[in-house]
Amino acid sequence: MTNNFAIRDVKFFKPDGTVEVGNICVAGDKISAITQDEVTAENVIDGRGKFATPGLVNAHTHASMTLLRSYSDDKSLMDWLQKDIWPIEDKMTRRDIYAGAALAAVEMIRSGTTAFADMYGPCMDEVAKVVDESGLRGILSQGIIGVANGDKKLADNVELYKNFNGAANGRITVMFGPHAIYTCPPDFLRKVADTAAKFNAQIHMHMNETQTEISDCVKNYGKRPFEVVAETGLLELGMLAAHCVWLSDDEISIMRDKKVRVAHNPGSNMKLASGVCPVTKLLNAGVTVALGTDGAASNNNLDMVEEIRLAALLAKVDTLDPLAVPAAQALQMATEFGATAVGLSNVGRLEVGYKADIVLWDMRGVDWQPNYNPASLLVYSAQSSAADTVIVDGKILMQGRQLKTLDEEKILSEFTSCANRLTGN
Amino acid sequence: MTNNFAIRDVKFFKPDGTVEVGNICVAGDKISAITQDEVTAENVIDGRGKFATPGLVNAHTHASMTLLRSYSDDKSLMDWLQKDIWPIEDKMTRRDIYAGAALAAVEMIRSGTTAFADMYGPCMDEVAKVVDESGLRGILSQGIIGVANGDKKLADNVELYKNFNGAANGRITVMFGPHAIYTCPPDFLRKVADTAAKFNAQIHMHMNETQTEISDCVKNYGKRPFEVVAETGLLELGMLAAHCVWLSDDEISIMRDKKVRVAHNPGSNMKLASGVCPVTKLLNAGVTVALGTDGAASNNNLDMVEEIRLAALLAKVDTLDPLAVPAAQALQMATEFGATAVGLSNVGRLEVGYKADIVLWDMRGVDWQPNYNPASLLVYSAQSSAADTVIVDGKILMQGRQLKTLDEEKILSEFTSCANRLTGN
Repeated sequence: MTNNFAIRDVKFFKPDGTVEVGNICVAGDKISAITQDEVTAENVIDGRGKFATPGLVNAHTHASMTLLRSYSDDKSLMDWLQKDIWPIEDKMTRRDIYAGAALAAVEMIRSGTTAFADMYGPCMDEVAKVVDESGLRGILSQGIIGVANGDKKLADNVELYKNFNGAANGRITVMFGPHAIYTCPPDFLRKVADTAAKFNAQIHMHMNETQTEISDCVKNYGKRPFEVVAETGLLELGMLAAHCVWLSDDEISIMRDKKVRVAHNPGSNMKLASGVCPVTKLLNAGVTVALGTDGAASNNNLDMVEEIRLAALLAKVDTLDPLAVPAAQALQMATEFGATAVGLSNVGRLEVGYKADIVLWDMRGVDWQPNYNPASLLVYSAQSSAADTVIVDGKILMQGRQLKTLDEEKILSEFTSCANRLTGN
Repeated sequence: MTNNFAIRDVKFFKPDGTVEVGNICVAGDKISAITQDEVTAENVIDGRGKFATPGLVNAHTHASMTLLRSYSDDKSLMDWLQKDIWPIEDKMTRRDIYAGAALAAVEMIRSGTTAFADMYGPCMDEVAKVVDESGLRGILSQGIIGVANGDKKLADNVELYKNFNGAANGRITVMFGPHAIYTCPPDFLRKVADTAAKFNAQIHMHMNETQTEISDCVKNYGKRPFEVVAETGLLELGMLAAHCVWLSDDEISIMRDKKVRVAHNPGSNMKLASGVCPVTKLLNAGVTVALGTDGAASNNNLDMVEEIRLAALLAKVDTLDPLAVPAAQALQMATEFGATAVGLSNVGRLEVGYKADIVLWDMRGVDWQPNYNPASLLVYSAQSSAADTVIVDGKILMQGRQLKTLDEEKILSEFTSCANRLTGN
């Protein structure tokens, strides 16, 4: 099917959070019309029984960590990281990075994700290759641990930027990825900011994830993380900040003033017992809050439908307010707010002129019945396995649950071989 | 297939929380052998690539409320109940109760649930009919609002007991269902206790769900709910207590002494912003904690895999302890502890002599890769749509996602007709 088609008679999620029935026309990489009128098109997708939403944006993940899914669960944070995760990550090769990211791409497409912000490394060029092959959008950054070979990693991020920013028909954006305040001292962060500024690149960084991170930062620098980072120049470049669990009011003011965008990771924050991001407070302050899965070692999947549901449920129980993060807002966090957070313009809304990044959800399952409100059903009841058709840039990546760009069997076989080698099986 | 078969070469969840490979043999309604030795059987199910667990037990639901799924979301509790839920429930007919429960049965089987504790009414005999036809186990009670036609509802519960306790080849148990302390004054609860005692029947009741419930109870009776209920005789009969969110230490002592079993409903408690049940504290006190979905109007599905995950995640973030409710324990809460909570003996463990209530989960999906630990993968990564085969009492209710006892198309058509009539569509 060429990129000229119409999705007919489909219920779709409007930018204002309501649901309507209409025809969505795609021409090239864009939505060319949304109308109740009769449409003509080279090809037609029957939208009856389907729910169309913008493609889901996973605003924070580490794709290749699919290799470590359920490798180590139910451990204390430091045991998990130091005894299990870091030692096995040290053994990862270029081949592993590709295999893990390829499986992640299959998983993301199958669950309705069309764009992902990835921070990992080394060999992020392998992730870029997966983005190119899969048809997904990727916002890629080299994870830079300042205290361990920081300069080398920074140079890797520069190479990544030079080689891949704007690549894959513009589907790849490269950011700089200073890992966190506890792995990157302020002087080093200044160096990252100066380097990224040369390329006009944005920043993707873990911020304020755990109580220990905050107390260590205050002990070491006499200030909280956002206060330290504000003095490095990083925030002037535009920051995608992952987690943001423990925040002072002053930090929220800094975030608002510097237009920091948050990637909230409810699943990971719950599983690692990090705490609860104050989503409502941030949204009320005018801060953009998107959603992410984090890596599969701490989630343990890349399922954004689950993340949407967790965001809606966790905000309610945390504030004891059943009106917190209603369904439409949760879905916006994973679509429009997600696109804004990862720096994509003209993405994340079903609207004429926007990129044709669209998911059609199959509403035949009993968990979609009765069909009073599809947005509410997707957020509170359905499973991501209801993703039927996934479109990015007007190109169909999956239709009727059949992948169009990736060879799942081959990817799975290579992935299993890598996983077995890593764990000595 | 007669009830004489072997599931060969299957990874299975052992009662001690570990996973092993073996052959599970079923004869009649029971597990007759679990062995690594070669087995002979009339029929064989290939267990390779599958994960066997005991059937999931939904310890608290209102099945027919599937009709109200996403009918009213994101409302304050009293607006939700008084303006939306109660008025539409008043319009429900006998036909609706059947249609809603039948769709619920489809949904439960498709997501790996084999037993459910249901409190609703009127016309609970229609739910009993669904239990009989579907092959599921049902622990049924008439929801008794003492302050509105209480005596009539109590009489209905007596009828239900007389007509259906032990019915459907023993797959139906009838309990008495006094709704809650705020709808049943102590004198009325004493009457329920006296009546249930005559039949040696157990009690299913909502307990300590919201802060308002507690403060109203203290205001009206000078004591907290479990202290009031302890004086009515209800606890002597054996109680399945749903929710148990707000508990004093004294109440936990009462629960332990009276062997109260808890149905924890994390999804509903989060969505309605009720609060967080202190699961770890209860387990440490020796109280049995099972899991339930609550009704589909406040969840919004009957997906026990989701409930297992929420229980594991919510306990961690609530206590800020990543070791709280590890994967194996969460799965036990939905199986063995569930069976104990709803009063079923010889159910909930894959062990010789236990009832053959078994689910086979298909592990081919990418969210099950790599396959380090199936129990952890089911709890933290997989979707309930991975349920491939569902067996109750040795009888196959679903195989290869094909329902064997229910006509899904007919049920869905009747359900949609009822839902449309209820909402005037």
